[in-house]
Amino acid sequence: MESNMIYMPIVLAALGLIYMLVKKSWVMKQDAGDGKMKEISDHIYEGALAFLNAEYKLLSIFVIIVSVLLAIVSFIVPTTHWLIVIAFIFGAVFSAFAGNIGMKIATKTNVRTTQAARTSLPNALKISFGGGTVMGLGVAGLAVLGLTAFFIIFFHFFMGGEWTNTMDMTVVLETLAGFSLGAESIALFARVGGGIYTKAADVGADLVGKVEAGIPEDDPRNPATIADNVGDNVGDVAGMGADLFGSYVATVLAAMVLGNYIIKDMGGNIVNEGFNGIGPVLLPVAIAGAGIIISVIGTMLVKIKTNEAKEAQVMGALNIGNWTSIALVAISCFALCTYMLPETMKMEFFGEGLVDISAMRVFYATLVGLFVGGVISAVTEYYTGLGKKPILEIVQKSSTGAGTNIIAGLATGMISTFSSVLLFAGAIWASYAFAGFYGVAMAASAMMATTAMQLAIDAFGPIADNAGGIAEMSEQEPIVRERTDILDSVGNTTAATGKGFAIASAALTSLALFAAYVTFTEIDGINIFKAPVLAMLFIGGMVPVVFSALAMNAVGKAAMEMVYEVRRQFKEIAGIMEGTGKPEYDKCVAISTKASLKEMMLPGLLTIGFPLAIAFIPMIFGMNHQAIAEMLGGYMAGVTVSGVLWAIFQNNAGGAWDNAKKSFEAGVEINGEMTYKGSDAHKAAVTGDTVGDPFKDTSGPSMNILIKLTCLIGLVIAPILGGHTSETAVAVANEEIEIVKSNDTSSNEVEKQIEVTMEMDGDIAKAEVSIKTTMNGKTSTEIKKLEGTEEEVKAKIEEIKASLQ
Amino acid sequence: MESNMIYMPIVLAALGLIYMLVKKSWVMKQDAGDGKMKEISDHIYEGALAFLNAEYKLLSIFVIIVSVLLAIVSFIVPTTHWLIVIAFIFGAVFSAFAGNIGMKIATKTNVRTTQAARTSLPNALKISFGGGTVMGLGVAGLAVLGLTAFFIIFFHFFMGGEWTNTMDMTVVLETLAGFSLGAESIALFARVGGGIYTKAADVGADLVGKVEAGIPEDDPRNPATIADNVGDNVGDVAGMGADLFGSYVATVLAAMVLGNYIIKDMGGNIVNEGFNGIGPVLLPVAIAGAGIIISVIGTMLVKIKTNEAKEAQVMGALNIGNWTSIALVAISCFALCTYMLPETMKMEFFGEGLVDISAMRVFYATLVGLFVGGVISAVTEYYTGLGKKPILEIVQKSSTGAGTNIIAGLATGMISTFSSVLLFAGAIWASYAFAGFYGVAMAASAMMATTAMQLAIDAFGPIADNAGGIAEMSEQEPIVRERTDILDSVGNTTAATGKGFAIASAALTSLALFAAYVTFTEIDGINIFKAPVLAMLFIGGMVPVVFSALAMNAVGKAAMEMVYEVRRQFKEIAGIMEGTGKPEYDKCVAISTKASLKEMMLPGLLTIGFPLAIAFIPMIFGMNHQAIAEMLGGYMAGVTVSGVLWAIFQNNAGGAWDNAKKSFEAGVEINGEMTYKGSDAHKAAVTGDTVGDPFKDTSGPSMNILIKLTCLIGLVIAPILGGHTSETAVAVANEEIEIVKSNDTSSNEVEKQIEVTMEMDGDIAKAEVSIKTTMNGKTSTEIKKLEGTEEEVKAKIEEIKASLQ
Repeated sequence: MESNMIYMPIVLAALGLIYMLVKKSWVMKQDAGDGKMKEISDHIYEGALAFLNAEYKLLSIFVIIVSVLLAIVSFIVPTTHWLIVIAFIFGAVFSAFAGNIGMKIATKTNVRTTQAARTSLPNALKISFGGGTVMGLGVAGLAVLGLTAFFIIFFHFFMGGEWTNTMDMTVVLETLAGFSLGAESIALFARVGGGIYTKAADVGADLVGKVEAGIPEDDPRNPATIADNVGDNVGDVAGMGADLFGSYVATVLAAMVLGNYIIKDMGGNIVNEGFNGIGPVLLPVAIAGAGIIISVIGTMLVKIKTNEAKEAQVMGALNIGNWTSIALVAISCFALCTYMLPETMKMEFFGEGLVDISAMRVFYATLVGLFVGGVISAVTEYYTGLGKKPILEIVQKSSTGAGTNIIAGLATGMISTFSSVLLFAGAIWASYAFAGFYGVAMAASAMMATTAMQLAIDAFGPIADNAGGIAEMSEQEPIVRERTDILDSVGNTTAATGKGFAIASAALTSLALFAAYVTFTEIDGINIFKAPVLAMLFIGGMVPVVFSALAMNAVGKAAMEMVYEVRRQFKEIAGIMEGTGKPEYDKCVAISTKASLKEMMLPGLLTIGFPLAIAFIPMIFGMNHQAIAEMLGGYMAGVTVSGVLWAIFQNNAGGAWDNAKKSFEAGVEINGEMTYKGSDAHKAAVTGDTVGDPFKDTSGPSMNILIKLTCLIGLVIAPILGGHTSETAVAVANEEIEIVKSNDTSSNEVEKQIEVTMEMDGDIAKAEVSIKTTMNGKTSTEIKKLEGTEEEVKAKIEEIKASLQ
Repeated sequence: MESNMIYMPIVLAALGLIYMLVKKSWVMKQDAGDGKMKEISDHIYEGALAFLNAEYKLLSIFVIIVSVLLAIVSFIVPTTHWLIVIAFIFGAVFSAFAGNIGMKIATKTNVRTTQAARTSLPNALKISFGGGTVMGLGVAGLAVLGLTAFFIIFFHFFMGGEWTNTMDMTVVLETLAGFSLGAESIALFARVGGGIYTKAADVGADLVGKVEAGIPEDDPRNPATIADNVGDNVGDVAGMGADLFGSYVATVLAAMVLGNYIIKDMGGNIVNEGFNGIGPVLLPVAIAGAGIIISVIGTMLVKIKTNEAKEAQVMGALNIGNWTSIALVAISCFALCTYMLPETMKMEFFGEGLVDISAMRVFYATLVGLFVGGVISAVTEYYTGLGKKPILEIVQKSSTGAGTNIIAGLATGMISTFSSVLLFAGAIWASYAFAGFYGVAMAASAMMATTAMQLAIDAFGPIADNAGGIAEMSEQEPIVRERTDILDSVGNTTAATGKGFAIASAALTSLALFAAYVTFTEIDGINIFKAPVLAMLFIGGMVPVVFSALAMNAVGKAAMEMVYEVRRQFKEIAGIMEGTGKPEYDKCVAISTKASLKEMMLPGLLTIGFPLAIAFIPMIFGMNHQAIAEMLGGYMAGVTVSGVLWAIFQNNAGGAWDNAKKSFEAGVEINGEMTYKGSDAHKAAVTGDTVGDPFKDTSGPSMNILIKLTCLIGLVIAPILGGHTSETAVAVANEEIEIVKSNDTSSNEVEKQIEVTMEMDGDIAKAEVSIKTTMNGKTSTEIKKLEGTEEEVKAKIEEIKASLQ
């Protein structure tokens, strides 16, 4: 049993995927409605597919370039294996495939939800949430399947399927990091590109349609309306899916890396504990696997009974599913920690040496993660939820104009960093105190275990939103729109809390990756009292800010192109406003697609280029590799700290503005007067929402990927920055360890013994030659330290050996 | 000569202050204009004084509380001397006094500038810049005078006026840190309180006056107009003055601390090099002293000749003065570095050991500082200057509404962090590479040497602004307003670049303080690979964000109170709009005063409370002091990195919005059409400016103080966190070093030698007892390490000694 545990996650992932397929075919079998609805839905489906295809075409070029670069590196740098290229490609393909599944099902589910809403709210929820479930399980299932499969393959390839030593496992995990890198790279472009797409279409449609032409939202006469609905799927569904796919893989990977070092700290041998001797490495994968089945159970619990249900009931149904999943994950963490880990482990704590850590403490760390995942949603809900104090204050401030509304929104977003950061800082501290950085990574892993459930809840929102749009465009009875609006309203709340979850997961994942990076490079921590490291901390802190600005500007540019196109169509197409002329939806879709793909380049380059520049430019100037590793670590820390702050700030400010605007729909009391849509205060709130749109849907969510990808690139570069010896370097060292005995070289009895150890630090070989001379029963030892290129050092060693004989 | 160098700065400072008095009496002798002008000017003067008095009353309570706390600490903690209380009080008083001088002269100069502008632009410049000069020399002169005087006193008190050892000098400088702490505390409240005051009055006056009542800016019928003009002085003059006073003192102090460690690294003795053996400690003070005289020369060069001069000529005159000062500082740095430093010094570089550093390399480091001071102004000017690309883009975006205007402004502020941070990071790296953290501190010191000149240029702006206001309110000929507008326009540019200078100085000062802190506490650097340190880095990063939000909200609250009062007066005072009823200016002044003093509490508490909580809460729980010191260091780094980013972001975004709005005054081309004031695009730009106001005048500039004060509090706490042994601890160690010789204790010839070294780590005593036993000519050494309370360890040592005899 124990030695088969390695296959457990793959089986559970497969089960999850099978359930996903069953659910998918059930959704697809539902009634897709009549002609007009179907037509609109098909437009959205095709638009989304057009974007995905264009994006994948572009990304395949990117994947090929990176693959070639990785291949070159793997042939030049002895510590990197070429299999990382394969892993990278599969990571990219799996991530794209997961996004594809989500987008397809979402664009098929929307119309079926509208159709169901004509007769039954419970059914509409069942279908829309069913679509979300397919998305969630698709992402989580593929993540666990891909990661586990590659782990098993590499584990057998490099280690023969049984624990050998830390070094070999390091090679396994470094190669596996390629999978994560592939996934996260695709996620970057999906999030940024999708974010630009959705807001460009949204802003473009609103500016000309609502403001200039005075037609309502989702009006079929607006040429940008299809692009707008496509955007919801591209940004919120595919983008979020790719984001969490990346987090899921990266978190588990980081925990595995840190698990490997526990085995090292325990003397490199816990074989007698079963699980192929790699229990701590396997544990995070096992929890991820369990999470998939738990999420299936959780999704089954989401249902309402009556057609009369309101937002509260729908929200309640989602909460039951969510909290049950979290509770079940806690139970499974307890079971798996106690089952798979040695009762007591040894972990190296920085500056404290080896400390005994019990399996229970790892379990406590996972509880910290689950706690953070739950509480961060509540915090986000407080700062962005309808009817909450911060929103009411923004509403009040709207009465004195857009300026005060915007100041209030900015301040709300900024203030919201307080509790979130204290929560994260507390979580880091607590999980570290329980079980070191392995504890931090396990906290993240536990939190991420419910990813499938979280995604189902998340993806259900845009589906309901789209369903409402289709109801509007196909001119259904008002009751249909009322029902989809209930779902949509709940979806808005879950979208905000989902973003909180995504940030929390990104923050913990990045820290785990950061820890894995430091451990990989074997540097003495990251000391910011060294000026170059401190300088990099500054630069790292700046990157998320500049990234956000680029993303915001990109939305502005793309939106302007959309505005010109919509204006052109209104002017040139005869009868478009009377509903007799047909708008050219596809032109708007094409513009959004092209602009978003073009505009995602620069932020992408910034994300990938900076860490590479920091690593390789000083390397060209011959700087010490360990010093570079520390600088890069400082950069990673800067990006993470600043990125988390800007993510919280932007997401919550955007969410707050959005709901302040929405508050006017039901009417709000300002200075004792009821104020509604169309008032000056409402107009001010609309301006606030315009500012918030790119914040919450483009730059804010992109921060997650930025910080994860930065840390992941660091992890992949780590072997080049070296410190640790792997593969060939080990081989060299082993080959050179030999003993020379030479009795009687002169009249005295002399015995000489020579021991050589050699290590590669990047390109530099370091060797220690110890020569023991025993003469007349007395022993003296001479140690020579050598450094230089591999050839030089080897030649020198031969010379020394020759001199002794 | 060499041993009198210590008095040189005090003499130069006194000379500067004498010149200041001469200049002041010249300004005061100028014609203060006729009845109406004088009346308005008196209103402003009295309003400003009322605020200062109320503020000082409140702050004296604060100073008393902190003094008592410091006194208690100095009696409990053996490593802190009670003289720090005296230094603290004087620092606070000097800073307040400097602010007072500036405010008084500014409010007296404004009306004289208006009067001069009736006949001559060159004279108007001469007077307004003369007022600025008084302010600049007052601040810089008092800073150098106070700091040097206390240094000399403490140097004689603790060391007898001649180098003894590093430990004694550490005590001198730690006590001197009290002066800096006092100055920076006052600066915090002056900046934050002043920032809230000025914007509350401004927004309140505009919202009701301009928007609701439709009367122009600075109209005497507006009851808030005096408060608005007072605000310019309170915020821009007194706030900026206190800010730079604090920077000046803190920078020099930090450089002195690091200079002390150079002497330590050189073996604790460079007496033969002259300068009382403290050349490296004295150098930054000497440069500061030279800077004062250089600034006097610089200010003398600022003049224009013709009444027909335009902005460019005025700007040119200021530039000549500024660049000449910078060039002269460079020359004096060369002279002083080569004169006062040993030709070659030894400095400990972290992880590299002792490195030989020549005096020339310190000079190069000062050049780095001067370079940064010059370039940062150019960078700021690019992102916020009229007619520059970023501003033109914001103007274009205004045509599609306030939303796009604001997005563009936010993005500009965010993008501007790129070049500024790269510049700072480069400066840190370069000055560190030249001469370690001493180099970083010397770079900051050189940059700050022109403070008097910078402040003169800065303070001249609000004086000209006020002069224009007085011209408007007293209904002068249009030519008068035209002339003051030329000065005001130049003043707006120098205000923006001055903010850049203030940020740069705060950033470098904080880093120098940070370095001094690490050196003081003698921790092994700040390793962010330890989770608690990383957690504090996160929390530190969050504080500037929350601080900014609090400051912004404070402006909003105070402005609302002002709005209600102005509305009330418009309604209740008969004939106010016709000019027959007299508005109650003093009520508005009182509201702004009260509100700003109330609202500055929370941000102040946040700034001071967080570092104290981080230091003392874990101490109560018995955490290791060194670990706490490292955590606090992480917090300081987080605040600095995040604070610098948010300062740049907020200042530049605010400046950009302001000038985008101003662009409409001369007219701008949007989509091929000339657009002017009053257009929809202009209204959108006004909204942007409203958002930018608290950014650039309240929260943005407060960041400087936040980061400096945080690092300074760390430095003052440092002795408690310990690591280094001072005073009593040294005494213990010295007392215990003794040698026990005991010949012949048995039949063999045995000699035992015992050496004891003992150090205090906070409350914990650590001792190393090495016992050398020589028997039959062979020596063996046994080392015992002891740890515990002082009594325990001492008892144990006695026990060991007894056992040997």
